[in-house]
Amino acid sequence: MDTVASLLAAYRGGQRTPSDTVRATYRRIAEHADPALFITLRPEADVLAEAAALEAHHDAALPLYGIPVAVKDNIDVAGLPTTAACPAFAYDVQADAAAVARLKAAGALIIGKTNLDQFATGLVGVRSPYGIPRNVFKPELVPGGSSSGSASAVAAGIVPIALGTDTAGSGRVPAMLQNIVGLKPSLGLVPSLGLVPACRTLDCISIFALTVDDAMAALEVIGGFEPTDAFSRPHTVGALGPMPAAPTLGVLPAAQREFFGDADAAAAYAGALDRLKALGATLKEIDFSPFAETARLLYEGPWVAERWLAAETLMTTNPDAVHPVTRAITEGGAKPTAADAFRALYRLQELRAVVRPVLAGLDALVVPTAPTAYTVDEVLADPIRLNSRLGTYTNFVNLLDLCGTAVPAAIAASGVPYGITFLAPAGQDAEVASLARAFAADTGLPMAASAERPAYPPLAPPADPDRYEICVFGAHMSGMPLNAELKSFGARFVTEVETAPVYRMSLVEGPRPGVVRVNEGGASLKGEMWSLPYEGVGRLVGAIVSPLGLGTVELADGRTVTGFLCEAAATHGCPDITAFGSFRSYVASVE
Amino acid sequence: MDTVASLLAAYRGGQRTPSDTVRATYRRIAEHADPALFITLRPEADVLAEAAALEAHHDAALPLYGIPVAVKDNIDVAGLPTTAACPAFAYDVQADAAAVARLKAAGALIIGKTNLDQFATGLVGVRSPYGIPRNVFKPELVPGGSSSGSASAVAAGIVPIALGTDTAGSGRVPAMLQNIVGLKPSLGLVPSLGLVPACRTLDCISIFALTVDDAMAALEVIGGFEPTDAFSRPHTVGALGPMPAAPTLGVLPAAQREFFGDADAAAAYAGALDRLKALGATLKEIDFSPFAETARLLYEGPWVAERWLAAETLMTTNPDAVHPVTRAITEGGAKPTAADAFRALYRLQELRAVVRPVLAGLDALVVPTAPTAYTVDEVLADPIRLNSRLGTYTNFVNLLDLCGTAVPAAIAASGVPYGITFLAPAGQDAEVASLARAFAADTGLPMAASAERPAYPPLAPPADPDRYEICVFGAHMSGMPLNAELKSFGARFVTEVETAPVYRMSLVEGPRPGVVRVNEGGASLKGEMWSLPYEGVGRLVGAIVSPLGLGTVELADGRTVTGFLCEAAATHGCPDITAFGSFRSYVASVE
Repeated sequence: MDTVASLLAAYRGGQRTPSDTVRATYRRIAEHADPALFITLRPEADVLAEAAALEAHHDAALPLYGIPVAVKDNIDVAGLPTTAACPAFAYDVQADAAAVARLKAAGALIIGKTNLDQFATGLVGVRSPYGIPRNVFKPELVPGGSSSGSASAVAAGIVPIALGTDTAGSGRVPAMLQNIVGLKPSLGLVPSLGLVPACRTLDCISIFALTVDDAMAALEVIGGFEPTDAFSRPHTVGALGPMPAAPTLGVLPAAQREFFGDADAAAAYAGALDRLKALGATLKEIDFSPFAETARLLYEGPWVAERWLAAETLMTTNPDAVHPVTRAITEGGAKPTAADAFRALYRLQELRAVVRPVLAGLDALVVPTAPTAYTVDEVLADPIRLNSRLGTYTNFVNLLDLCGTAVPAAIAASGVPYGITFLAPAGQDAEVASLARAFAADTGLPMAASAERPAYPPLAPPADPDRYEICVFGAHMSGMPLNAELKSFGARFVTEVETAPVYRMSLVEGPRPGVVRVNEGGASLKGEMWSLPYEGVGRLVGAIVSPLGLGTVELADGRTVTGFLCEAAATHGCPDITAFGSFRSYVASVE
Repeated sequence: MDTVASLLAAYRGGQRTPSDTVRATYRRIAEHADPALFITLRPEADVLAEAAALEAHHDAALPLYGIPVAVKDNIDVAGLPTTAACPAFAYDVQADAAAVARLKAAGALIIGKTNLDQFATGLVGVRSPYGIPRNVFKPELVPGGSSSGSASAVAAGIVPIALGTDTAGSGRVPAMLQNIVGLKPSLGLVPSLGLVPACRTLDCISIFALTVDDAMAALEVIGGFEPTDAFSRPHTVGALGPMPAAPTLGVLPAAQREFFGDADAAAAYAGALDRLKALGATLKEIDFSPFAETARLLYEGPWVAERWLAAETLMTTNPDAVHPVTRAITEGGAKPTAADAFRALYRLQELRAVVRPVLAGLDALVVPTAPTAYTVDEVLADPIRLNSRLGTYTNFVNLLDLCGTAVPAAIAASGVPYGITFLAPAGQDAEVASLARAFAADTGLPMAASAERPAYPPLAPPADPDRYEICVFGAHMSGMPLNAELKSFGARFVTEVETAPVYRMSLVEGPRPGVVRVNEGGASLKGEMWSLPYEGVGRLVGAIVSPLGLGTVELADGRTVTGFLCEAAATHGCPDITAFGSFRSYVASVE
C-alpha cells in the first residue's frame, strides 16, 4: 500500500509523479466501489489538473508533495459543499478550513469529502443518510465513526492520509475497527477554523494513516498555533523518536477492565501489555474510576448542549431532516440548565485535579482503543447503547485535555482487529506517537487489510531545537541515585557513549566520579547522553556541586559534547578508578 | 497607622508585643464603633491568649508574626460561624479555609469575620441584613462591596490586612471608595478551599491593605499551589521590585472613557496617566470594547447560574431568607440553559483571543478602579443599576484571567477618593503590584482617612526564582566581545566580585582567560556576576567552547557561585596572567 513515506520516496527518486498517483487513486476508488464512502468526490480531471500544476510549479521537497488526502465532510474544503452528513444542513464553501489550507500549501491533493455519522455524533458509522461505509478490514463490522468514510478511505488504500475529527473518540474507534492508525492531537494544536462543531470546546481535527510516521508527517503540516482561532493553543508538534528507555506506562487494573464479555478484546489488551513489558516498559496499574466518571460526564452531562447549539437552527425549523438517532441525542441538549453545566464543569475540574498527579508520573496511559467491536446488524438493532459502550476508553480524553495515538494491537482468530491507545496530557503528541510507533513496529501487524507490513526504520532521537544533550558519568546515569533529579529537569535518555582515550576518573567525595582530561596516560570512559530542555540544563547547572562542572567532552567517535568534568586540583589524593572504564563498573565492583 | 511593616519592625526591635497590638486593636474597634463592620468579632481575651501563645512559642521571624487580620464572612475560620451575610445560610466551621490556615501558620491573629454584600453579590456594601459598614474615608458614600467590612476594617486602622473576595470587583471597588489598596490575585493563586462560592469558576480571595508592600506580604503567605484544590493553579507569587524602566501601559482612549458624568473621576484618571508618563511610562491607547463586552457578559450572561448554584438550597426552600436585591439577581441564575452557557463560553474564548495579543504588548493595562462613587442614599434608591455601573472596569477581569492591584490615585475637592487599577495576565501579580507601588509612592497620598503617608522605601530588583547567577571572567564581561552573546541569553548585570585566593588564570587560545583552582599558590581574581533565566543558562552552556566550562567558584566573601573554569590540562604551556588580577587588566596592559 502507498504510504506518505513511500510516495515521497518514489517522487523524489523520479519513479513516479503525483499525476500517476492521482490516476491510481481513482482506479482504486472504482475497484473499491463503496458508494457510501465519499459524500463528495472531486472529478478525477480536476485533481489531475492540480497535480500537473504541482509538478510544474513545485518540487518534491514539499512535505506532502502529491499526497492524496480525503477530508471528513464536516471540514470545509473550498468549492465543495460541507454537509456534515445532513443534506438539509449543507452549505457551499468559499474558504478552506485552516487545516485544509495547510495541507494544500504542503502539496497535498484533496480528492473529496468523506461520509460520517451525522454532525459527528456517534462512534459507529451507521448514522448517515449517505449510507454505511464498508469496514474494509472485516465487512460485517461497523466501520466505526463518526469519521467512518475517512477511516475506510485509508484502510482501502485510496489515500494514505485522511482527516477525521475527534470529540469523543471519532478519530480512534474507527482506526481500531479498520486496523489502521488514528492520531488525536492535543486540543488546540490543529486549528479548528472551518470545522462544523460537534462540541466546540472538545472538538479537534484528527488524522488517519497506515503508519504512525505518516500520521505525524500530516500533523507536522496541520499543527501549530493559529492566532485567528480562539480555540488555538501554543503547543508545538514535536518530533518522533525511538522508544524511551524504560518508560512507565499506566495500565488498567484487572478489576477495572471492561470488555463487555469480549474475551478476544481482553486477551488483545493483556497481550499488548505483555509486549510493552518485553519492550522495556514498567507497567503501573492506575485507578481508572476518575477517567470512567469523566467519560460518563460527556454524554450524561451538559456537553450535549453543545451539539444542540451546533444544529439548533435545523433542530428548531426542520427536525425531520435530522437522522432519527442523532435527533434523539441532540434534542437532549436543549434540556440542561446553565446551572447543570457549571455543576458539571466543577466536577470536571475536580476530576482533572485528581488525574493530573497520576498522569504526571507516567510516560503515557495505555488503554484499549475500544472495549469490543460490533457488527452493523448489532448496532442497527441497539443503536445508542452499543455506541456508548464503544466510547468507554475514548470519551474522557478531550475532557481531560489529553492527546493520543491509537494503533493496531492484535487480530483475533475471529478476524476482529483490536487496538490500544497511548494517552498523555496535551502537548505530548510526539511523545505518545513515539511510544505508539515503537509498539506498532514490534507487533509486525500488516497495514489495514493488506498483507504488507509498515516500514518502521530505526529513528535517531529527534533533534529538538529546544533541547540540549549532556554527557553524564556518575550518579546521574540510569538507575543511579541522582537520575531522578536529572529526570526532574526534563531529561530523557538518548544513548550510551564512550569518550576519546584522553580522560582519567577519580573518586571524589560523594563518592562521585571526577572525570579529568589529561595530556598523557588517558583512557576511554563510558557515560550516557541525556537530552534536556535548555531550562533544565540551567537547573542542572544550579544543582551541580563542587568540584564537578560542565565542560566539553571529546567522544571516541570524534564528536565533542557537553558533559560532566571535575576540577583537576580536587582529584589530588583521590583514588583513581580509570581502570574500571565506567562508574557503573566501579560501583558493581564494590557492591 | 500600623502597617504590617511597622508592626514587624516594632516586634523585632522589641518595642512592642503582639499582645500590645491586640489590645490596641480592640480599643480601636471600640472607638470606631461601627456595629455593621463585623458579623462575628472574637472575644478580646481569646485573641490575647493566642497572642501570648505566639509570644511563648515563636519568634518574630514569622512573616506575619502578631499581625491582626480580619476575614470576610464568606471565608471559613475554624470555631466561628460562616454566614455569607445570610443568617439562614450560616453554618458552623470546623476547619480553616486554606488561606486562613496559611495566615495562622505565618503568625497572623484572626480577630473576626466582616460584613459583606450577601453571598458576595454586589459592589456596594448595602446588601446585608447586618447593616451597612461605614465608609471610613467619606461616610456618606457606600463602603463598597461586596467586601465592605474588610475594607472598612483596614481603612479604620483596626487591622493592617483583611481578606476579601473578588469575583467581579469586590476586592477593588471598596479599596477605591475607602482610599486603600486592593490586591486581586490571579485566579487559582490563592487556594479557594473553604470559601463560600459566588461564581466558583471566577472567585478568588483578595487582600486589602494600607500599602502595596503589606498586601504583597500577605500574598506571599496565602499564595501558592494547593494540590487538594481543584481550582488551584501552579502560579508563583513573585516579588516586588522597582518601577521597570520605560514600561508600556495600556490606557483607555478618550472616547471610551465612561465616568457616568463624574468630572472629578475623569480628572483623576487623566491625572494618574500624566503621573505615569512623568514616571517614565509610555502610554498606549487600547480598544476597550472587547473588555467592555466581557464585562457585560458577566451579569447578562450565564455566570449568574453559578450564584444560583451556590445558594440553590436556600433559594428553593426559603427564598424569603435571602436579601430581596440578592434574591432578584440570584433568581435570574435558574433561567439560562446549558446551551446559553456554552454560547457565552464560546464568545468569551473569542474575546480572550482578541485581548491576548493586546495585553502581550503591555506591561499592564491601567483602568479607573471604578468609574465614579455613589452615596448610600443613591444606591438604596437605585440598587441594581448603580451597582452595575461600579463594575464597569472590574467585571471583565476574572473572565479574562487577569490579576490586578488597585491603588488610590487622587482625592477630589469634594473629598471623594478615586483610584486606578493595574491589570495584567494571570501570573504577573508581582509585576502589576510593583507598578502600582511605584505609582502609589509617587502620589504621596495619605493612607485611608489618616494624615500619614505610607513608607515606600526604594527596592532592589527582586531575586527571581526563575533566574540564576553566573560568574564570568573573560570576554563575557561588560563591554567585551562576548557580552552581547551573554545578553542575548537574557543576562542582566548584577555586581562585580572577587574570588577567594585559590585560583590562577592562564591565557588559553582565543585568547581567553582560563581560570583554574589550585591547591597551592592561588590568588584572588576579579569577575562579574550576571543573572540569567535558567533557559539562558542552558543556552550559555551550549555556547561554551573547550577548554572552558562551568563549575563552582569560591568568592572572597565565602560564597560559592557557579562560574567559568578551565580544564587544567589545557593550560599547560599557556602564559600565566594571574598577576594582572583580572582579564580586564590584562587586556588593558596589551592594548
